[in-house]
Amino acid sequence: MSYPEKFTGFQAPSAEKYLEFEKNSWAPRPFGDYDVDIQIEACGVCASDRHKINGDWGDSPYPLAVGHEVVGKVLKVGPKVTLAKVGQRVGVGAQVYSCLTCRQCKNENETYCKQQIDAYGAPYLDTGFITQGGYSSHTRIHEYWVYPLPESLSSANAAPMLCAGITLFSPLKRFGAGPGKKVGIVGIGGLGHYGIIFGKALGAEVWAISRTRAKEADALKMGADGFIATNEEGWSKPHNMTFDLIINTANSFDGFELSNYLSMLDIHGRWNSVGLPGGGINVRNQDFLDNGCFIGASHLGSRKEMLEMFDLVAEKGLESWVEEIPISKEGLQLAMNNLGESKVRYRSCMVGYDKAFGA
Amino acid sequence: MSYPEKFTGFQAPSAEKYLEFEKNSWAPRPFGDYDVDIQIEACGVCASDRHKINGDWGDSPYPLAVGHEVVGKVLKVGPKVTLAKVGQRVGVGAQVYSCLTCRQCKNENETYCKQQIDAYGAPYLDTGFITQGGYSSHTRIHEYWVYPLPESLSSANAAPMLCAGITLFSPLKRFGAGPGKKVGIVGIGGLGHYGIIFGKALGAEVWAISRTRAKEADALKMGADGFIATNEEGWSKPHNMTFDLIINTANSFDGFELSNYLSMLDIHGRWNSVGLPGGGINVRNQDFLDNGCFIGASHLGSRKEMLEMFDLVAEKGLESWVEEIPISKEGLQLAMNNLGESKVRYRSCMVGYDKAFGA
Repeated sequence: MSYPEKFTGFQAPSAEKYLEFEKNSWAPRPFGDYDVDIQIEACGVCASDRHKINGDWGDSPYPLAVGHEVVGKVLKVGPKVTLAKVGQRVGVGAQVYSCLTCRQCKNENETYCKQQIDAYGAPYLDTGFITQGGYSSHTRIHEYWVYPLPESLSSANAAPMLCAGITLFSPLKRFGAGPGKKVGIVGIGGLGHYGIIFGKALGAEVWAISRTRAKEADALKMGADGFIATNEEGWSKPHNMTFDLIINTANSFDGFELSNYLSMLDIHGRWNSVGLPGGGINVRNQDFLDNGCFIGASHLGSRKEMLEMFDLVAEKGLESWVEEIPISKEGLQLAMNNLGESKVRYRSCMVGYDKAFGA
Repeated sequence: MSYPEKFTGFQAPSAEKYLEFEKNSWAPRPFGDYDVDIQIEACGVCASDRHKINGDWGDSPYPLAVGHEVVGKVLKVGPKVTLAKVGQRVGVGAQVYSCLTCRQCKNENETYCKQQIDAYGAPYLDTGFITQGGYSSHTRIHEYWVYPLPESLSSANAAPMLCAGITLFSPLKRFGAGPGKKVGIVGIGGLGHYGIIFGKALGAEVWAISRTRAKEADALKMGADGFIATNEEGWSKPHNMTFDLIINTANSFDGFELSNYLSMLDIHGRWNSVGLPGGGINVRNQDFLDNGCFIGASHLGSRKEMLEMFDLVAEKGLESWVEEIPISKEGLQLAMNNLGESKVRYRSCMVGYDKAFGA
């Protein structure tokens, strides 16, 4: 194709009509010395995409194209780019900018930089350009947030790793998942299934924790060493004080007995949440006292961890459990509705970009 | 003195009359092979003592002698005792038993053993004997919970370290307080003042955090590098994302803006509570997300840490800020009332045992 003047994407027009995706075009922000232009060929579908456009998270800058699990081909690189090459297949995740100079950025903690910019719906400080996500023909991203991908992996399979995957990989790595460690993954969905896959690949003993046994067979196929169903009487008892780390991907606190989960942690073990339910939960200091445990949350992962994750994926031949959906207004409606109805097994990925946007 | 058939102490008769201490005697539990009999000469006064007898923590087994910061002289040791000698001055803290065989006990985590027994008001599993605390003439303790004390330290100065001291020393040590680390201590009282003293001795930069500046001069004398008053506008801002560890000794959640405190933590920093307020606090996953921080709690410290603490105390010549009160019905009433009115600067210790119980 000729090099595009404008980028094109499926934008949600408003919270009220968030499913009425409109195919619009916009001028990208000015091309910078470190920028990489990418022709998109696949984009994973994250629960955040739906929250962002349906009004769950308050008002968004409409019209807005979401999608932050992007895979595509490099079309053009700025004069100072060293991390990507024209023609290369690359990925982009949920963060597209940070200052790269603050202490957090210099500590491999750029996801906690005060100047971080999300992949969609966020203004760049210099130009005010509102970031547009991967339900689009192209994107323009600073090279630091552009990652090479292993050749072994299909684009649809790699895409969801760029947000859901790294969101699990980073806390697993940071909080010590590995040989001799017992790790629990609460919630077996788009996020949780990577917890099982990556937890096992890192060498830990991994237990899937879900309300019912409906996903037990799948979890075991993903590599789980065991399965815990929290609708069964006394479910936490056999695991009392044995988990080093539990990662909570649950998207709701409804009926959540936190103290039962915490009772399974070993001394000073961590309960790390990566989902963002609305509302909160009441905790007492006494809840932590039987084992001196800790609760907290983590946010995405660093560039370094992104590269480590894809190295592990390549080395061990890991794959996402992904359902491909051709991108179009109707395809995106289907993807959003499947999310709303918790029907996805276990991540959707929009594909067929050449058909939707021209090759 | 002749060896006592019975031990004598000041017992609270009931929750309603908890200040009407009665001087009673009781037969100690049978003397075991690993037991150490101690003639008490000082006992620190912990807020727990008051909670335990005034009904705050529910019904207690009355009559009950409390006090769990005990210093005294060894009168007699069992045939298998190797850790204490007759005539030696020793200390006993808030825990007097654990199984010593479970994984926690073998990991220097005996404070989290399921069979732990508190220094007062708790039954031994074998005999059903209800433990009696240090407002007493004598105590009989398994050698593992009997600690040698540095000679440099007066008994009244050593006593409060056995609960309040170790409660701060253990999390400071476990969670990395040391050179290059910035540590906050919330609440400058009996617990908190040890946070400043031990935090500094371990080499950390220590900030005292209190509602007002009333205790600022004292905190700086204890060694604090700085002081934060939370009744001042924007108090947390200058410290955004700079603390590696904050230890919370506060005994109440009233008016507590947890998110302001957490905003001061560095990436994955810990907020560790050692107080036990009634009630709880609502937390959202979002509260942890700006820095990936964690909240939790810890409970006392191990024998190993107790010995390390007293080594540090001896090496650096550290001292408690302690007010001595002669033990008697009236003395204990004064101590309890001072606690209730938050008048203690910064720990009380009952002394004068020879006068109260005979030499």
